[in-house]
Formats: sequence, structure tokens, C-alpha cells
Amino acid sequence: MTRTITHKLDPQLDLVLERVVEVPPNLVWAAWTTPEYVKKWFTPAPWQTVECEIDLRPGGIFRTVMRSPEGLEFPNVGCYLEVIENQKLVWTAALKPGYRPQSAAGVPLFTAVILLEPHGAGTRYTAIAIHGDQEDAKKHADMGFHDGWGKALDQLVALAKKM
Amino acid sequence: MTRTITHKLDPQLDLVLERVVEVPPNLVWAAWTTPEYVKKWFTPAPWQTVECEIDLRPGGIFRTVMRSPEGLEFPNVGCYLEVIENQKLVWTAALKPGYRPQSAAGVPLFTAVILLEPHGAGTRYTAIAIHGDQEDAKKHADMGFHDGWGKALDQLVALAKKM
Repeated sequence: MTRTITHKLDPQLDLVLERVVEVPPNLVWAAWTTPEYVKKWFTPAPWQTVECEIDLRPGGIFRTVMRSPEGLEFPNVGCYLEVIENQKLVWTAALKPGYRPQSAAGVPLFTAVILLEPHGAGTRYTAIAIHGDQEDAKKHADMGFHDGWGKALDQLVALAKKM
Repeated sequence: MTRTITHKLDPQLDLVLERVVEVPPNLVWAAWTTPEYVKKWFTPAPWQTVECEIDLRPGGIFRTVMRSPEGLEFPNVGCYLEVIENQKLVWTAALKPGYRPQSAAGVPLFTAVILLEPHGAGTRYTAIAIHGDQEDAKKHADMGFHDGWGKALDQLVALAKKM
């Protein structure tokens, strides 16, 4: 059984951030999979990630709580689907831990695919948000996917350089 | 990375069929993962499974079309999550192939876990349907989960004996 799947992108439904960053895949991986690191980079300032829980295996939990500048908290619970160290991380908001179906509560449900490839001394970083319909994709784009994920990636890189 | 996860059952949300059958795990596996076999056992007669498409890997498609005795057709598209030959098969209706979120269209969304363990010359067979809320679990129970999945298993065993 091969774990690699080809993600056929659908430009109507998928949002993609691709960039080459100066830090190697293993540090990007550590930033994505260590709760203490995630809390430091995951949400663009002045938003904060105040809680993070990770059970790094297919079916395991990926939970965060984001706090707005006004102090409102937004919990997110998702489920890991694929975990290939230093290469690929997939999780979805459409399932709770243990693969339990989860319905949307006003927010666009998406599956996230993070792909890491060595690129010189750095990493070719690809983040894909996969949506079920155009409405969710548009909502996510309007919420600032590109700007938000880009700024968060800047924070990740700054953190990784200090690791 | 271990692929085995413990499925913590929730009696309010999960439906379980457990039985020891006389055919070995590899034949049960073949019946579940070969389209031509699935069409022969998957729906209790007089219902029929008239189409089946299988791409047996995490992220791959599991698609069936069921036909009622009156000739109405009911398509189902799901996504495999775990594929461990002769031991464990997990797929969900909450995602389309490629892990794309899928919303319910009036039917209860569930994730199915099929566990196979050798038991003498046969198999300890466990099928679990995992739901997101009590309403979906009840709907699925009322649709005849236990009777339906039990009859389908009888058909699977009869088929496996002829393999």
C-alpha cells in the first residue's frame, strides 16, 4: 500500500499557498507537530493560539483554541488523516478524533494538506485547503486564507530559525 | 507511526455488529475490497448493488450504487481512510475521494470501521458505524442497521464459501 496520493486540485474548490522557505523540512515539521511550537506561530498576531493538543497519528486529534485581540476564543477540533514525517501532514475539520463525522457550525469545513519537499537548504512548502463546495471555498478565501496562512508561515519560519 | 487506533465506542453514537463467521479473514477482505464481489453481497436482497468502484488506498474512492426492488437507484460516494490488508478497513461518507468534505443529503453520515481477526479457521468480524450525533445514529438504527448489515454479512459468508 502506498501512502502517497495525488491531490488533484480543483481551482473552484481548493485554496493553495506555495512558497520556498529558508528552513529545512524537519524544522517545518517540528513547528507543525509540536503543541508548544504551534502556539507560537499558528495564528497571525495579534491573534493568539492559546491551546493546542496533538495526537499525531491517523485518527488522532488536532485541537487548537484561537483567541481574538478582543479576547474571544474560537475552538477548532480536527482529525489527522495522514502523517508522513517531514513530508506530508493531512488533517480534516470534517471529522472529529476517531474519524467521527462533524458538521459545520457556521465555519467552512476543509481538509488541509501540508506538503514539504527539500529545496536546497530550505523547503518547498505547499499548503492546500480542500473544500466541499464553492460557497465554503469563497468564505475561506474572504476570511483571508492567503494573507493569513502567509503571515502564519512567516511566523513559523522566524520560529524555526531559532530552533 | 502505528496505524492501529483504539476505537473508543460511544454507545449513544455508534452502532456495532460483531460476529464470528466460518470463513477466514483473507476471504472476508477479498469480499470487501473487490468490486465484483461487493456487488454480490453488499445489499440485502431484493435490493441490489449495481455499481461498485474501489480505489483501495487512504484518500481513494469507495462508490456504490444501490437499487431498490422498485428500481430506484441510490448512489453513495465515500473515501477510504485506513487500509490494512486482512485486518482493518476504514472509510467515511463524510469525505469524498481526496479527503474533500461532503455534506449530508438527507442521509446519516457515518464512518465505517471493519475489523477482522483470525478465530480458529474463521474470523471474528466487527463492523462499527460511527456517527456525529444521536439523531444520525438513531436514523441509521431505524433504517435497520443491525438487520441489514447482518443479512449482508450472511450473503458475504455464502459468497466467500464459494471463492
